[in-house]
Amino acid sequence: MTTDATGAALILAAGRGTRMKSAMAKVLHPLLGRPMVRFPIDAARDAGLAPFVVVHHQEEQVRAALADQPDVTFARQEQTRGTGDAVRSALGVLPEDGVVVVLNGDGPLLTAATLRRLLDAHGDHLVTLLTVEMAEPGRYGRIVREGGQPVRIVEAAEATKEQLAITEVNAGIYAFDLAWLRTVLPALAPHPPKGEIYLTDTLELAAAAGRAQAIVVDDPDEVEGANDRWQLSRLRRVLQQRVIADIARSGVTFESPETTLVEAGVQIHRDAWIAPGVVLRGSTTIGEGARIGAHCVITDSFVGAGVTVKPHSVLEGATVDASQTTTVGPFARLRPAAVVRDGAKVGNFVEVKKSEIQAGAKVSHLTYIGDATVGEGANVGAGTITCNYDGYNKHRTEIGAGAFVGSNAALVAPVTIGEGAIVGAGSTITQDVPADALALGRVRQTNLSGRAEKLREQLAALKKQR
Amino acid sequence: MTTDATGAALILAAGRGTRMKSAMAKVLHPLLGRPMVRFPIDAARDAGLAPFVVVHHQEEQVRAALADQPDVTFARQEQTRGTGDAVRSALGVLPEDGVVVVLNGDGPLLTAATLRRLLDAHGDHLVTLLTVEMAEPGRYGRIVREGGQPVRIVEAAEATKEQLAITEVNAGIYAFDLAWLRTVLPALAPHPPKGEIYLTDTLELAAAAGRAQAIVVDDPDEVEGANDRWQLSRLRRVLQQRVIADIARSGVTFESPETTLVEAGVQIHRDAWIAPGVVLRGSTTIGEGARIGAHCVITDSFVGAGVTVKPHSVLEGATVDASQTTTVGPFARLRPAAVVRDGAKVGNFVEVKKSEIQAGAKVSHLTYIGDATVGEGANVGAGTITCNYDGYNKHRTEIGAGAFVGSNAALVAPVTIGEGAIVGAGSTITQDVPADALALGRVRQTNLSGRAEKLREQLAALKKQR
Amino acid sequence: MTTDATGAALILAAGRGTRMKSAMAKVLHPLLGRPMVRFPIDAARDAGLAPFVVVHHQEEQVRAALADQPDVTFARQEQTRGTGDAVRSALGVLPEDGVVVVLNGDGPLLTAATLRRLLDAHGDHLVTLLTVEMAEPGRYGRIVREGGQPVRIVEAAEATKEQLAITEVNAGIYAFDLAWLRTVLPALAPHPPKGEIYLTDTLELAAAAGRAQAIVVDDPDEVEGANDRWQLSRLRRVLQQRVIADIARSGVTFESPETTLVEAGVQIHRDAWIAPGVVLRGSTTIGEGARIGAHCVITDSFVGAGVTVKPHSVLEGATVDASQTTTVGPFARLRPAAVVRDGAKVGNFVEVKKSEIQAGAKVSHLTYIGDATVGEGANVGAGTITCNYDGYNKHRTEIGAGAFVGSNAALVAPVTIGEGAIVGAGSTITQDVPADALALGRVRQTNLSGRAEKLREQLAALKKQR
Repeated sequence: MTTDATGAALILAAGRGTRMKSAMAKVLHPLLGRPMVRFPIDAARDAGLAPFVVVHHQEEQVRAALADQPDVTFARQEQTRGTGDAVRSALGVLPEDGVVVVLNGDGPLLTAATLRRLLDAHGDHLVTLLTVEMAEPGRYGRIVREGGQPVRIVEAAEATKEQLAITEVNAGIYAFDLAWLRTVLPALAPHPPKGEIYLTDTLELAAAAGRAQAIVVDDPDEVEGANDRWQLSRLRRVLQQRVIADIARSGVTFESPETTLVEAGVQIHRDAWIAPGVVLRGSTTIGEGARIGAHCVITDSFVGAGVTVKPHSVLEGATVDASQTTTVGPFARLRPAAVVRDGAKVGNFVEVKKSEIQAGAKVSHLTYIGDATVGEGANVGAGTITCNYDGYNKHRTEIGAGAFVGSNAALVAPVTIGEGAIVGAGSTITQDVPADALALGRVRQTNLSGRAEKLREQLAALKKQR
Repeated sequence: MTTDATGAALILAAGRGTRMKSAMAKVLHPLLGRPMVRFPIDAARDAGLAPFVVVHHQEEQVRAALADQPDVTFARQEQTRGTGDAVRSALGVLPEDGVVVVLNGDGPLLTAATLRRLLDAHGDHLVTLLTVEMAEPGRYGRIVREGGQPVRIVEAAEATKEQLAITEVNAGIYAFDLAWLRTVLPALAPHPPKGEIYLTDTLELAAAAGRAQAIVVDDPDEVEGANDRWQLSRLRRVLQQRVIADIARSGVTFESPETTLVEAGVQIHRDAWIAPGVVLRGSTTIGEGARIGAHCVITDSFVGAGVTVKPHSVLEGATVDASQTTTVGPFARLRPAAVVRDGAKVGNFVEVKKSEIQAGAKVSHLTYIGDATVGEGANVGAGTITCNYDGYNKHRTEIGAGAFVGSNAALVAPVTIGEGAIVGAGSTITQDVPADALALGRVRQTNLSGRAEKLREQLAALKKQR
Repeated sequence: MTTDATGAALILAAGRGTRMKSAMAKVLHPLLGRPMVRFPIDAARDAGLAPFVVVHHQEEQVRAALADQPDVTFARQEQTRGTGDAVRSALGVLPEDGVVVVLNGDGPLLTAATLRRLLDAHGDHLVTLLTVEMAEPGRYGRIVREGGQPVRIVEAAEATKEQLAITEVNAGIYAFDLAWLRTVLPALAPHPPKGEIYLTDTLELAAAAGRAQAIVVDDPDEVEGANDRWQLSRLRRVLQQRVIADIARSGVTFESPETTLVEAGVQIHRDAWIAPGVVLRGSTTIGEGARIGAHCVITDSFVGAGVTVKPHSVLEGATVDASQTTTVGPFARLRPAAVVRDGAKVGNFVEVKKSEIQAGAKVSHLTYIGDATVGEGANVGAGTITCNYDGYNKHRTEIGAGAFVGSNAALVAPVTIGEGAIVGAGSTITQDVPADALALGRVRQTNLSGRAEKLREQLAALKKQR
């Protein structure tokens, strides 16, 4: 529990979410790279509330998904018997008094600003409801007000025709006086047939004391929940637009925000330029003025200021140092621990794994660099392979500064190509090459005159037979 | 004609669709992988109606595009002289009596549910119109009602100011009493100047008998037609959203449905996860819990449960068996008859054609596998090529279980690498390798001391001369 | 200045655009491949107005960005002291009299049609304002009309409650009688505290003469400006939709216009088919009936009629001749001066640079072709590399008609493979190959019986030690 919290937030995350039709509990479904339940927790914390989470279904997985949130306190609901029961399950871990805000673990769009507004309004009320105006309120519970004060929430099924016409409905988010809640919760009667305890039954008690109120949320999106995957898609779109709009306003150009995915942990600096179809995930950072080409997929990587990543590149766990001249791609794949230094080039159909491409080095085409160092200013020709794996062990390749590796070479690791050395095209290199030496591992060519013609005749004849 | 049909549907597909500006007849333009005309046919069939199609323009192509729909009966319209003439052309093949619903071949959004509503409402009326409410009815024909019954359709050009204010317009979809229609159609007068016969002229006759009605469609989208390619795009978007929403609600996560293309014949199972930019075409199946990375393009392929396809992979006619450990991509290309078995890996810049990658085998980088079998647990090194084509014939490569093919090897087919055999990196293999043998086809390396330095001087001098 | 201009347009492009948070002046931010300021210039020119541009911030860069627009006349504003001052700065270069329309350099959505409407309405008025109706006019200046004539623009901050209710606001676009403007501009009083001169102050003077008017723009989008990058994204989307809708209506199919980027200079011909995620930039032309697969990125290239470009291909400065049988991709990269002739094939993971692939030639997989000619009907096997670079110089490779280059060959340039010659798989070719000769540059294979088994034991032991 954070020490500067001004109250508690109780996030209800015990349900299964049957309509999600998933083996995964609803609140764990990811949104922008985070489990859905993280969003109300983050909003609560940003609003100065200490987060408490009620768990039941897939309890262990929910706890594990929040293991990186040390300020979260968990409470176990033994059976899922209604929202009142869920809150009751948490009374043992919640503070004695003060304010508690009850939130839904499947409502990721609620903002800290709205929570602060709710808290500011709450004052010394016993219950403050958050409500929403809906033109077509459908099956939602209607807020019945008397003399301005909300006195009752009527379920649509039990509403009179007059009540059905009410357009203010319950958003399922409440601030409570916790000391008072402790006195009334145990007394609530279970509802048949399932014996559920309704948190909303507290409203009438608070209203009787003249200390209930309801405030209407400004943006109805904020209280929308994810009931199925299609609705989840919609929530994701709203969240994504919020994230991208914020970054755009900070000075980043998105050519096509509608086709761009930016997870919540990504940082993008001023004057970066993001082409259509880009996917940025995890803890990725994009530096000032960097250009990310169409359809790149970048995860947990650092792309420094000024770097150009050309279309269709895939980076994961990679580092590309800041540079005005470094280019990566198109069709480059940088795997974990790939490091590209100032002015280096990683070109098309090139895979780099656990290797450093030092300043000014070029690996331009159709190459695999694994467990290697490519020295400053070295040039690795097209089709070169570092043979780093023998079926049992991985070995390192060291290519010295200024070395030139001819095309289609196979470098059988462990092996060192000395500084300034040259490897002839088509060579298989199995021993170290000294600095400034020329290494060849290929046969002199033979031309057999006229043989191609004969060969063609034979092959054509064979084709005929088939 | 289906035997359990409760009536007939006549789909008008004779027109050219001039505003499409296409060499292809309008009704053949594809939507979600099917010719547009398939959608009204499918809706009719789903509503229990036997499908009849009136053809004229590109008759042969329309018949060919529907060759896989054996229950469709065709009627040829000799000249395109109006909707009345189109229906008249089909009287010879339609049932004697019962109900016939007339539909437009360029109206792909109409649902079977709406057709059923039309049929239910029709009862013993002579004509039941489907109409649509439009805030701005523009050039559409207005429905003139008298005493609630529709009595006339007035074209906008001929409408009085009062009639122009009518917002209920003709959707061009009708249910008719077929026996009655046979009696009135021949008597309809052609309209100058083109001598067209208007189907809408039947309305007044039915109204005079007090047996005409009109019902308003709930969703105006359903009766929108594709008049040009921009409108076609809009219809496609609506159709696509319907298809994806249905699949999402069945328990599939789409990270970005707006950027995802899913053709009508695709099946996706529960808990599959579809990243942005994915394109799924043809008869593709995605298994339970499979993960499809960003921008993959998958056509007519089977991706089994649990499989991970990484970003930027292209699969066509491929099979990837169900497995929790199989990964394909990124940048993998699986071509027709590529088969990937349990726990195998096909990595980046790898092409597989007409080949089986058996359980646990790895083909990780920059490789072409064509007409081959890669045995269980075998490892094919980076840059390996199966040389399956000699310019005339294709030959097979067999790589035995547990074999290890070193990087940059060329396997000249037909050739067999025995079980447990090892091929040295950089080797060209032209003969079979026995089981457990080590095959080498490369030269011992020579290092020429100091030669790189001299070579550089020569090359630099040459550069200067240029 | 164009000789047939019926007046002048003065585009205000002097500001910095602080809220863009960019090192680049606001009007230079690109939209569909052009600096934003180009759009009002083009609209003005299309409406028959000679374009004048007021510059100050990043003057040199703005002039440079418009260097290809020879009819633009520049005027320098010494200090940015309001719109009146900006116009005053240009009086020296503007015509003596006639009409001048004042436009905003950051308003890219204004159409020539609206400008023509403004000009037609202007007649012999002294000032004609363009205004916009806004349901929520917020901070915009309200148009106060008296007897129908606009007499004053009241800033929101200074408006009475009654005036705040006015929904017609100033769009910041004006037509002026230039001769009259010359007489009144010098007399306008600067506004404290910054001493700015407001162009809007002219309205009262014109109204006093009974010669002011205001016309309301039909589509409010047209007068929206780009104040920050998020708004810029919105303008781009509107512009992009206009461009794509026009092309679609001309007979082109876009499977997913929402995910497609088409810059303003791109031409696409009838019956072309554009899959999702395609990015078309620069001066690209797509020929009649060509098919562009998903996620292709094509810049400054010519794709001829009938050609198929498969998914995930990247073309830049390339030419693909018209052909019903040519295919490029998937995963092909054509770089500048790559030329692909009729019926040729460039397959997956193939890079072509400054080379011609002649009619019917095939380069199907994992190949780099640089500085080369691949002759008619030649076949280049998988994994082939033209070794065109020696670290200092680039050299050419010539492959004759009908030649067959076996897989994994390295062709060390400069080198010529004669017509009909065959190069054995895995060969490194360092000398010319005569026509119809068979060239081999590889070692005979050795099989070492049982050695693989022993090797595995050693490698496994080594692994254990580690």
